[in-house]
Amino acid sequence: MSQLPAILARLDAGLDASLERLSSWLEIPSIGTDPAFNAQTRAAAEWLRADLEALGFKAELRETGGHPVVLAHRPKPGAPHALFYGHYDVQPVDPLNLWDTEPFKPVIREIEPGRKVISARGACDDKGQVMTFIEAVRATLAETGDLPIGLTILVEGEEESGSVNLPPYIKANAAELKADYALICDTGMWDRETPLITSTLRGMVYQEVTLTAADRDLHSGLFGGAAANPIHLLARILGELHDETGRITVPGFYDGVHEPTNAQKAEWADLNLTEKEFLGQIGLKHSVGEKGRMLIEQIQSRPTCDVNGIWGGYTGEGSKTVIPGQASAKVSFRLVGDQDPVKIAAAFHQFVRDRLPDDVTAEFISHSGSPALAVPPDSPVLQKARKALADEWGGRVVSIGSGGSIPVGGDFKRTLGIDTLFVGFGLDDDRVHSPNEKYDLSSFHKGQRSWARILQALGS
Amino acid sequence: MSQLPAILARLDAGLDASLERLSSWLEIPSIGTDPAFNAQTRAAAEWLRADLEALGFKAELRETGGHPVVLAHRPKPGAPHALFYGHYDVQPVDPLNLWDTEPFKPVIREIEPGRKVISARGACDDKGQVMTFIEAVRATLAETGDLPIGLTILVEGEEESGSVNLPPYIKANAAELKADYALICDTGMWDRETPLITSTLRGMVYQEVTLTAADRDLHSGLFGGAAANPIHLLARILGELHDETGRITVPGFYDGVHEPTNAQKAEWADLNLTEKEFLGQIGLKHSVGEKGRMLIEQIQSRPTCDVNGIWGGYTGEGSKTVIPGQASAKVSFRLVGDQDPVKIAAAFHQFVRDRLPDDVTAEFISHSGSPALAVPPDSPVLQKARKALADEWGGRVVSIGSGGSIPVGGDFKRTLGIDTLFVGFGLDDDRVHSPNEKYDLSSFHKGQRSWARILQALGS
Repeated sequence: MSQLPAILARLDAGLDASLERLSSWLEIPSIGTDPAFNAQTRAAAEWLRADLEALGFKAELRETGGHPVVLAHRPKPGAPHALFYGHYDVQPVDPLNLWDTEPFKPVIREIEPGRKVISARGACDDKGQVMTFIEAVRATLAETGDLPIGLTILVEGEEESGSVNLPPYIKANAAELKADYALICDTGMWDRETPLITSTLRGMVYQEVTLTAADRDLHSGLFGGAAANPIHLLARILGELHDETGRITVPGFYDGVHEPTNAQKAEWADLNLTEKEFLGQIGLKHSVGEKGRMLIEQIQSRPTCDVNGIWGGYTGEGSKTVIPGQASAKVSFRLVGDQDPVKIAAAFHQFVRDRLPDDVTAEFISHSGSPALAVPPDSPVLQKARKALADEWGGRVVSIGSGGSIPVGGDFKRTLGIDTLFVGFGLDDDRVHSPNEKYDLSSFHKGQRSWARILQALGS
Repeated sequence: MSQLPAILARLDAGLDASLERLSSWLEIPSIGTDPAFNAQTRAAAEWLRADLEALGFKAELRETGGHPVVLAHRPKPGAPHALFYGHYDVQPVDPLNLWDTEPFKPVIREIEPGRKVISARGACDDKGQVMTFIEAVRATLAETGDLPIGLTILVEGEEESGSVNLPPYIKANAAELKADYALICDTGMWDRETPLITSTLRGMVYQEVTLTAADRDLHSGLFGGAAANPIHLLARILGELHDETGRITVPGFYDGVHEPTNAQKAEWADLNLTEKEFLGQIGLKHSVGEKGRMLIEQIQSRPTCDVNGIWGGYTGEGSKTVIPGQASAKVSFRLVGDQDPVKIAAAFHQFVRDRLPDDVTAEFISHSGSPALAVPPDSPVLQKARKALADEWGGRVVSIGSGGSIPVGGDFKRTLGIDTLFVGFGLDDDRVHSPNEKYDLSSFHKGQRSWARILQALGS
């Protein structure tokens, strides 16, 4: 007899208590990228470890050379075994003056009539989403004394800084992390009523370039009109990365990009994503993506290039008539299909070098590189999850790619040989990576119920 | 009988003492742009006021709403009256780690065999150059008890921040500042052996632009490929300011630019300024100025555009996958001839706005605007100065425009109706506005002798 109704009822009754637990985790400022917060980041790891231990997991902190991972096991011989991944580190909070509430004092607010959210840094990314899954586990254990599947929980502390220690950790501990598939709750819903299974994620190439012209900063009166200005050169180079149709001009960039099937495109077209709803929410009107592509393609199945930061010369108050000796930019590419991150990084370096006069030099920092990831659409895990979500949300379940990158999915595939089920409950307006991050209470509540259903389905 | 030989002998004998006086003035960190140094900036004004008072001038500090001006009078009825201008504020010193010596502990160093310099912030710009003139006055007074001409000395404290209070001060005190011509010692020599009378100075338009796209910073995975990136837009706009021949593309920009006479061009060509010597000293090879123009034109008689600063997005350590909501740049133009700073600022605003989609906005800050300045080449003052310099330096005297801007010369012309004699002793490698600023002792010494000669000539 299905224990699901009782588990769901327990989740409904326990929502307030689950919010209190989430709030106490959110209060720990685990800003992993900032060494000033090292102690608090570790404390956030320990908070989760203790909670999992109380739930009956064998739960430990394992050192990595950076922030520790939380590793918890609850084996179930004879049953499928899942590996759940999340992260306990959160984004920095600046600029602080743009927050309506304090980023590490979670509050529950009604942002529209009948729509409550919890506001804090990490409310969605990733603590809220991790707890969405953990609460489903808690209620299942409390109600039934067991889980339908074996479970390993792996929660790291460096995702916001590129997870530098994770791939080697996975490699070194592959035997201990053995599983049939992975589960990640870090993606978004299609909209507030429609759940989403993420079928692909974009890869990432993150580069930094510094151009050096003169051997020092120059007076722009004495040298202006003759001396090369690296800001001009950098601006022109970055401006040439896209042509007037929105296509990226780096040679060879589109190698490995696959054209979707007509059926796939028809499915996407049915989703009817419009510029008005997608861009309107952020104060924009017109997509700058490749002409001739649907908006839905531009944001998940087409590769991109974005300059994430640029600096050079005098940037303080007032004026200074300087021609700087250097100018720099951080440039990242989102990859799809079989685009090769190593080749693209090299092509970008060449693209820059080809545009330099012989008295200006370029230096590069390669911050990260990971290929795109695809999940087989017909896997039994995905079918079961789709049915469970349809039962919870009562309507359609969208399966589509995400524009974002979750490189650990690629590590699971390459190193552990397993696919990942990506089901998350974030929303486009959650303001992850921005001030005033929030997570809808309906996402938290119905997400818990969704995972409880998925767990039951995976064990059957 | 000429008292000049005795005055020159006194200057030769008094060089060390003059260096000590200059050093004590240089020790006062009068960083006018930084409010933290307000007291020291005022102290530098008082130092000069007291020195001029001791020389027999009626010398006062006059309040302006910002830093005070030093105003000193020594009238001489029946004689021509000159107005000497300089500034006691100095540039900031960052980055401090690039200085070989402490910026406010002046030292005398031998940078090449037989070539000594004094190293400090302000050593050239402008305290060294001001004292070059004052020492000539001191020696003339000490030797003869009088000056050949009437003299008003006006030394302000806000030149490095755009002299915002000076034009209204000059207007309000025009009667008191009445003179036949102005004298400014703030320009450079042609080379270490060749003095220079500056015949034109470039004007200045200094603008700041901020583009705003989305109403907040965005996650580049979720929004990349669709959301407008203001860094890209700004880069493309700035990259379009020049065409491939080095010409500025802002419509109407070249209105008011005059073609020099063939005789003028021949004179300039005779100076034989090469890329190797001019750009080689700063580690560059190729001029980026307008094709078809001599290097000497590009740096003083052609107008320019330089981006002085650019910033946007994430610029810290490591990586952050953000599409910023804003990007900004400081853009300045050097003007020549009759180019109109008001029209050029407006044309720049339109240039930017013409290139924006309708969901991206631009805001501008107009930091400053001043037209170019020309000095009549046949004025008696200029002829006298030319002969005095030829006597001191023993060879040719170059008369050419400066690439830099000294807007107060324009205020003297428009408000007081007087022309300015620009004779200075700076050198291209003085590193004004950079770390390790210095002033050659030969510039200080022979500059003092030059001004003593010029003063005698002006009174005859």
